[in-house]
Amino acid sequence: MPITGKLLIGQSAVSGSSKPINAINPATNEPLEPTFAGGTKDEVEHACELAEAAFGIYRETSLEDRAVFLETIASEIESIGDELIERAMAETGLPQARLEGERGRTCGQLRLFANVVRAGEWLDVRIDPPLPGRTPMPRADLRQRHIALGPVAVFGASNFPLAFSVAGGDTASALAAGCPVVVKGHSAHPGTSELVGRAVQRAVKICRLPEGTFSLLFGSGREIGQALVADPRIQAVGFTGSRNGGTALMKTAQARPQPIPVYAEMSSINPVFLLPEALKARGQQIAEGFVGSLQMGAGQFCTSPGLLIAVKSPELDVFIETAAEKVKAIGSQTMLTPGIFYAYEQGVKRLSNSGKVREAARGKAGDTPNQCQAGLFVTSASDFLNDLELQEEVFGSTSLVIECADQAEVKHVATQLGGQLAITLQMDDGDLPTAKTLLPVLERKAGRILANGWPTGVEVCHAMVHGGPYPATSDSRTTSVGSAAIFRFLRPVCYQALPEGLLPHSLKDGNPCTISRLVDGKRE
Amino acid sequence: MPITGKLLIGQSAVSGSSKPINAINPATNEPLEPTFAGGTKDEVEHACELAEAAFGIYRETSLEDRAVFLETIASEIESIGDELIERAMAETGLPQARLEGERGRTCGQLRLFANVVRAGEWLDVRIDPPLPGRTPMPRADLRQRHIALGPVAVFGASNFPLAFSVAGGDTASALAAGCPVVVKGHSAHPGTSELVGRAVQRAVKICRLPEGTFSLLFGSGREIGQALVADPRIQAVGFTGSRNGGTALMKTAQARPQPIPVYAEMSSINPVFLLPEALKARGQQIAEGFVGSLQMGAGQFCTSPGLLIAVKSPELDVFIETAAEKVKAIGSQTMLTPGIFYAYEQGVKRLSNSGKVREAARGKAGDTPNQCQAGLFVTSASDFLNDLELQEEVFGSTSLVIECADQAEVKHVATQLGGQLAITLQMDDGDLPTAKTLLPVLERKAGRILANGWPTGVEVCHAMVHGGPYPATSDSRTTSVGSAAIFRFLRPVCYQALPEGLLPHSLKDGNPCTISRLVDGKRE
Repeated sequence: MPITGKLLIGQSAVSGSSKPINAINPATNEPLEPTFAGGTKDEVEHACELAEAAFGIYRETSLEDRAVFLETIASEIESIGDELIERAMAETGLPQARLEGERGRTCGQLRLFANVVRAGEWLDVRIDPPLPGRTPMPRADLRQRHIALGPVAVFGASNFPLAFSVAGGDTASALAAGCPVVVKGHSAHPGTSELVGRAVQRAVKICRLPEGTFSLLFGSGREIGQALVADPRIQAVGFTGSRNGGTALMKTAQARPQPIPVYAEMSSINPVFLLPEALKARGQQIAEGFVGSLQMGAGQFCTSPGLLIAVKSPELDVFIETAAEKVKAIGSQTMLTPGIFYAYEQGVKRLSNSGKVREAARGKAGDTPNQCQAGLFVTSASDFLNDLELQEEVFGSTSLVIECADQAEVKHVATQLGGQLAITLQMDDGDLPTAKTLLPVLERKAGRILANGWPTGVEVCHAMVHGGPYPATSDSRTTSVGSAAIFRFLRPVCYQALPEGLLPHSLKDGNPCTISRLVDGKRE
Repeated sequence: MPITGKLLIGQSAVSGSSKPINAINPATNEPLEPTFAGGTKDEVEHACELAEAAFGIYRETSLEDRAVFLETIASEIESIGDELIERAMAETGLPQARLEGERGRTCGQLRLFANVVRAGEWLDVRIDPPLPGRTPMPRADLRQRHIALGPVAVFGASNFPLAFSVAGGDTASALAAGCPVVVKGHSAHPGTSELVGRAVQRAVKICRLPEGTFSLLFGSGREIGQALVADPRIQAVGFTGSRNGGTALMKTAQARPQPIPVYAEMSSINPVFLLPEALKARGQQIAEGFVGSLQMGAGQFCTSPGLLIAVKSPELDVFIETAAEKVKAIGSQTMLTPGIFYAYEQGVKRLSNSGKVREAARGKAGDTPNQCQAGLFVTSASDFLNDLELQEEVFGSTSLVIECADQAEVKHVATQLGGQLAITLQMDDGDLPTAKTLLPVLERKAGRILANGWPTGVEVCHAMVHGGPYPATSDSRTTSVGSAAIFRFLRPVCYQALPEGLLPHSLKDGNPCTISRLVDGKRE
């Protein structure tokens, strides 16, 4: 199964004709073959045309057929075998075990959505039976279900070349909702993208779905992505990446004659609050857990713990000392791309040079290209609050400790935080009163609050929220991980007094899909 | 209970200091006392400051306390008595029976939301129990609930001075969600607004809620409204009105440092498809129903049937003839405001002067101010498709019949429609195959599809969708009428491994709120 460097448009593989892309092996800075010639607006047009043509059939596939399609994608990805892992390693510098785990997560996620589709909760069926005798006016028969929005544009992320890329969470949830997907593959891992894209393409064929159900485009720069979001057939956008990238897509989406929703997961520093009793009882253990979380994947996670907040105390000093020792021992790790490495270095320099920040530790420097050298820095709450730049995400294994005068200042820092994906409390029983005063503030800042764990490692389940207030995401009302992600690509439709023969299957009398329904406001 | 012309900020009544507003009795064009001096940015600031201060307490009121608050608002509105109806009649020109019905609907809506709050479905509780023995990684305890977004700005609509105004659907659903509300009252009915505002103010006091739970501002022009939407404490916006007004608020909301959702319900022409068998069997009866719907409230409904689409046929001729006779008999009705009357006249002129449209009938002209003279016009599908202006809403009792060559052209017209609140099918059993080919097109265009009824009369229930694709609304994923409207003002939060003592009440073990929950993906 050679990688060809082609765009996948429906069932075709097409050679692009604009600026070529080569993946770079970040461990060596050497380009990888083959060259991917970027697509043009013509290919965007063609993919969107096919997606629109597929939509009518795809959105009304039966729950079972759609579930089987998602499962087929998973098994086709698995059938690629080692080639996928090897290519992803070469393109991202990520280690084998991590990528094998990510493949498992990606396929598990597709299978979870298959079961979500089958369960039918996403249809949010509501039935208000007719009240013909009601005065002064009778009530008609009213039934509601959710339908798919239309073709969705998905942007692959650099940091999860499988789980947040071509067949990642955005694609899985959009397909689950009944939306055809046009992916703009990330230029950092085009070979991995093509391999996965071909797996999806095969699944479309095996399941005899319209070819426009899935397409995969490549293109350097922003031209292809912007054209995709501006295309009138695209009805929603899923994106994981930088704040600049995300806000640019939001602007394009809002400027369309018909504005559309953009689900951009952007930047987060994922504060960790170290409460006093926990620090006293197990500061060293917490330091160990923290450094473990910080070094995972060279800190290239949306949920990396980039901020630690605590009252200045001897126990905090011990924590910092212990963490610093452990940070010094962190070996260098290859970052995903030269661009991410450059941005990381700039971010660390911003901290070092701010004059308000003290370096507690740096990890080991590497002698090969694009090596992330971990960092731990310390500043005071007042300096942090006076310098908004210190709140900016440094994407990589670097974290900043904020020393506060007292618990009141801890709470004040909390109120000044921007929107976050996750906020962590390290707390013991004796910290409960403190945690209780903090929680109402933290809830307003984040999509997920966790206690005595670490924010990295986002469970793909029903209760997960991988989201949060701006600028963590563009739309705090949603999650991009977990089964509730499907709701991003749906909208409700009410059917009033429709004859049984015209009603959608899921709304017919007798509940033929055997799904949970809200009948007259009561859950059945 | 005299009307004072003051702004209601928390528990205070405050005199404004900017441009004064007087309601105009549209039946006479005479100004009504008292004068409302408009608010300034200072009052916007103050109301938002109080709303923010109230939010922490209000959002965590118990389900029962919040439900009782909504019910108290309803009974306080009812306790105003005839004064409310008389003032609303004078300010809007709407007849007594209509306003009494609207008051009933408004109070019924508040009571529906009280029960929605109690039922707790809106919390969307999801629990994924821990899997400590799972390999390779254990799963933590994960629980999700929805929380209120924050203070909400609500804009009163002119056409429902009670049901879509100060204590209308937006306010009721935002309060139900746990959001304090700052209302910008509509300048056409400030007296009605003050009366209702004082009822809400009293309910806040009776229920011992923080005063900032509710405020009511007035102001002519857009300054106050724009300042309100731009205020950093406001977290969402509810609006019903013109497309210009709605899109201006969308722009302001998007330009904020933190963009926020705007739920604007804007413009819709609510097409009615007259299918051939139905026209054959009961064309005259359909004409009667149509004209009844068209003349309701002088056509000043978001859901007025502004477009009729059918194949040209002798039966359609009979329908048009019958409808025309009935339109000629429609007496003139006072419109809501001189501005709305002027816009209506311009809209009708645009039809009359287009050169592509034939006048089938006009209703009776009035000899008092601001009288809506009904209208029925006819054009061909090709002329309609060539002139986008003919798709623009004419707010008032005017409708346009589109004659199509055949059913294929009917379907083509359907594909060219903009987003709509409601689409109606008049159909008999023999029309089922035709309706089946149309439905997939119509579903993509509207929030509600109805058969053999009329779009006016929007039931306030669980299955209702009063929404639809742009430009009908700014956000097709929502409804502004019915219990699902509450979801507009909520976002999910996930709690991971929180100690029982820190968990929100609704998420605690044993389901103490006795609400429906999704446990491990299964409905309980």
